[in-house]
Amino acid sequence: MHWQKITLAGIGLLGGSLGLALRKARLAESVVGFVRRQASVRECEGLGAVDLATCDLRAAAQGAGLVVLCTPLGQMRPLVERMLPLLEPGAVVTDVGSVKGPVVEELEGLVAQAGGHFIGHPMAGAEKTGVAAARADLFSDAVCVLTPTANSHLPALRQVRAVWDCLGAKVLELTPQTHDELVSRSSHLPHVLAAQLASLILSPEYPPAQGALCANGFRDTTRIASGSPEMWRDIALANRRNLSEALRTFMLGLQDFSRALEAGDAQAIAGFFETAKQRRDNWSGSRCACCTE
Amino acid sequence: MHWQKITLAGIGLLGGSLGLALRKARLAESVVGFVRRQASVRECEGLGAVDLATCDLRAAAQGAGLVVLCTPLGQMRPLVERMLPLLEPGAVVTDVGSVKGPVVEELEGLVAQAGGHFIGHPMAGAEKTGVAAARADLFSDAVCVLTPTANSHLPALRQVRAVWDCLGAKVLELTPQTHDELVSRSSHLPHVLAAQLASLILSPEYPPAQGALCANGFRDTTRIASGSPEMWRDIALANRRNLSEALRTFMLGLQDFSRALEAGDAQAIAGFFETAKQRRDNWSGSRCACCTE
Repeated sequence: MHWQKITLAGIGLLGGSLGLALRKARLAESVVGFVRRQASVRECEGLGAVDLATCDLRAAAQGAGLVVLCTPLGQMRPLVERMLPLLEPGAVVTDVGSVKGPVVEELEGLVAQAGGHFIGHPMAGAEKTGVAAARADLFSDAVCVLTPTANSHLPALRQVRAVWDCLGAKVLELTPQTHDELVSRSSHLPHVLAAQLASLILSPEYPPAQGALCANGFRDTTRIASGSPEMWRDIALANRRNLSEALRTFMLGLQDFSRALEAGDAQAIAGFFETAKQRRDNWSGSRCACCTE
Repeated sequence: MHWQKITLAGIGLLGGSLGLALRKARLAESVVGFVRRQASVRECEGLGAVDLATCDLRAAAQGAGLVVLCTPLGQMRPLVERMLPLLEPGAVVTDVGSVKGPVVEELEGLVAQAGGHFIGHPMAGAEKTGVAAARADLFSDAVCVLTPTANSHLPALRQVRAVWDCLGAKVLELTPQTHDELVSRSSHLPHVLAAQLASLILSPEYPPAQGALCANGFRDTTRIASGSPEMWRDIALANRRNLSEALRTFMLGLQDFSRALEAGDAQAIAGFFETAKQRRDNWSGSRCACCTE
């Protein structure tokens, strides 16, 4: 499958890496980037993330066989609404948003009205942001998830799948609902915990020695707290029911541990750390290269 | 300051790294390791972590000017009790335990009774364990904390400080109480959170795709959950009052976030992630090389 024109809407870490990878794999005659600021045009072209970058949505969308939405979740719907009159008939639209339920629900119908096909494709976020951090190999060996629905156009699904296969990703298919439930635990919950931990421990209320005693363990545990606040606000809101449930379950477990600790229950405390070590050590450690989180 | 004989009791990651560093810096004529199993004797000597390893406590302790306790916290008191009759008069005893209050309280008096001087020296743990992971540069540029009390013998304090200075560590002095309060937040709380997160997300109750969707963010956030359960049980118990308080404060913050999430309060959610990012990005990032956690 060779595309005449692939358009990436929003060129940050993911859009930029996708552009580098698509160009390297020669999957399209032309990879075009839609960006919001003129300064980004030069940066994206200078880094080779796209063949052409533009702030002109018409120029970006027209003639594109495949459009990949790479903006924060909250910008996707208004962007698609502006893009609809410009889409080619039969154009395939997909995205890299980290929450699928609401995106698929909103965009599948909209895109279909314009004669296009929407295929939901999620990836998790990253603590590095911006096109300058983009890498052509970001998707190589990465777990990437397609979230087709009963309404999905099968040829469009196969086309999108082929793109990710070509870029070396390991493609899974899940329903949007299952995807959102799983990532609320594997990705969104860790982000909230890392953020709360960083805010608390580095609070100005504590003495300066507090920060000096934060070392490698703290560094690893809170690394993802440096992610884009706008992106994570959108993700948390879009997946709030699942994320609330994940937080609730997490806090119940933490309360059990707290009670064991207050009771000085050495056996329960040892069991808590043993179970954690065993499960963590046995985890095969998949790589969702998309999440360089 | 050159020592005739330095004895390390317990040769895992920290003891082994200390042995490698002491030998490299030629701080002693002889670095002796006390180990529990015969197999460890060969391993420790083979890796060059000590000049001589032995299961014989008498041979290990006799003639040592400096004894460094490198065992899990729970083993320190019984070990010191066995060692007391063997200590040289004026011998300096220090340790690498991660909690100071109870250790200092118990051991300072005991060691003084035997004519020795106890100086508390804490370092945090590591998810790697065992002498095979030891590194001579583990303490270079590491923040290391001495916890003298009003009873501390000043020359002994200066001697212990000189050892860590020679190994390239950045030495801080804190009271045992302040130390324990600070590390309950910077080190012990992150460990409990990482353990709870790993146990929950990798629970066999969830489908296999749950593990497949765990990526780099999860990997970093839970890395320290692979630490030694025995060591972390001892640490949690020894510091349980501070750790309980840190957990309580953490959960209060998490509950605030949960409420904002359930209310769909976009501004509060954005503020939560912004504060976290700002504090994490501004953190200078000290390195407690002792915690390769």
